[in-house]
Amino acid sequence: MADTWLATLITETPQQGFELAITLSRRGVKYTQPDTEVLHKLRPEYAHDAGALTAASHVIALNFQTIAAANNYWRK
Amino acid sequence: MADTWLATLITETPQQGFELAITLSRRGVKYTQPDTEVLHKLRPEYAHDAGALTAASHVIALNFQTIAAANNYWRK
Amino acid sequence: MADTWLATLITETPQQGFELAITLSRRGVKYTQPDTEVLHKLRPEYAHDAGALTAASHVIALNFQTIAAANNYWRK
Amino acid sequence: MADTWLATLITETPQQGFELAITLSRRGVKYTQPDTEVLHKLRPEYAHDAGALTAASHVIALNFQTIAAANNYWRK
Amino acid sequence: MADTWLATLITETPQQGFELAITLSRRGVKYTQPDTEVLHKLRPEYAHDAGALTAASHVIALNFQTIAAANNYWRK
Amino acid sequence: MADTWLATLITETPQQGFELAITLSRRGVKYTQPDTEVLHKLRPEYAHDAGALTAASHVIALNFQTIAAANNYWRK
Repeated sequence: MADTWLATLITETPQQGFELAITLSRRGVKYTQPDTEVLHKLRPEYAHDAGALTAASHVIALNFQTIAAANNYWRK
Repeated sequence: MADTWLATLITETPQQGFELAITLSRRGVKYTQPDTEVLHKLRPEYAHDAGALTAASHVIALNFQTIAAANNYWRK
Repeated sequence: MADTWLATLITETPQQGFELAITLSRRGVKYTQPDTEVLHKLRPEYAHDAGALTAASHVIALNFQTIAAANNYWRK
Repeated sequence: MADTWLATLITETPQQGFELAITLSRRGVKYTQPDTEVLHKLRPEYAHDAGALTAASHVIALNFQTIAAANNYWRK
Repeated sequence: MADTWLATLITETPQQGFELAITLSRRGVKYTQPDTEVLHKLRPEYAHDAGALTAASHVIALNFQTIAAANNYWRK
Repeated sequence: MADTWLATLITETPQQGFELAITLSRRGVKYTQPDTEVLHKLRPEYAHDAGALTAASHVIALNFQTIAAANNYWRK
């Protein structure tokens, strides 16, 4: 992928960090399956399956660990 | 999601940290499936499946790792 | 849950830390399915399934990571 | 469990640390299913299933992370 | 494997780090199944399965944790 | 297992560290199923299943986290 989509792990707030974690999780999928049409076809089934939703939340949690550490947990 | 739901990772007690970990885990699901009606329909099946409950506890454990580190493990 | 069940992550010994990790793992389940009757019904099937037992041990390992770090690995 | 089985996370060598990680992984199972007769019955099926063996190795890897950190990675 | 494919974990940007995480994840597969023809045959099915794509993203997240830490999170 | 197979987590290069992570992952399997004949029988099925290959890469990623930390990420 030629575009720049991840210039920094630093965010202003934990919530923005969490949303960045979601971006990373989706990018992990996109690098494996770059065809967005395929991804859109998988979505309905995916978004109605409790196991799949938990698995998505699982990957987000892992990426959030990374981003939270990068931001020193937004401690003041 | 426009609302602010995660302003800080800091909590007063470990238990509040654990409960925040649950919030993060659910938010991870909600960002993927924002339709609460769909989520409510999935719930009964989900909450009666041992594997699904363990998977939920798994994600909570990961988020709790992050929050516990953020709070320096509530050491005094 | 109104009661206080997690006042500290600090334990005297690694073994008590491991047992606290088990408590956290079970609480993660209980927050998702608070009905203990349902949980008891799931138990027999669960406790006789190798995959489920490994998954339980998996969550315990994650929570033990957190607790061991909190206790500075009980180094002297 | 009344007996003391985990007095320290410190081991002399990485290999002993890895073996302790196996002990922790098995204890995580045993706390959930204390009946050793049941565990023995599950074993043959379990030990012939590639997925189950990988899952076991997975839990060992997590516990080894904890033990390796406790031992400061046996650096000299 | 005789060739050198991993000389350093250090990358200039987080995005390059993420892409290195993908490389590590694929190498983990390749060491287990070195026959690229077999891997290519598995690919279509794999790339159209939401669970498999999430699992891939999961492994990438873990490797990205390692690489991000190695790079001190690209903090300036 | 009586033989010494893990004397140190320190390696010269990240690639050797990755290969050590593979060794740890396989040892985790071998401790659970020591019969190499059984393991060899499982291999063909295993090495042709995308999910199993991803799971193997997953365990390698976890062990690589440990080894990379032990080596202070091979930073110079």
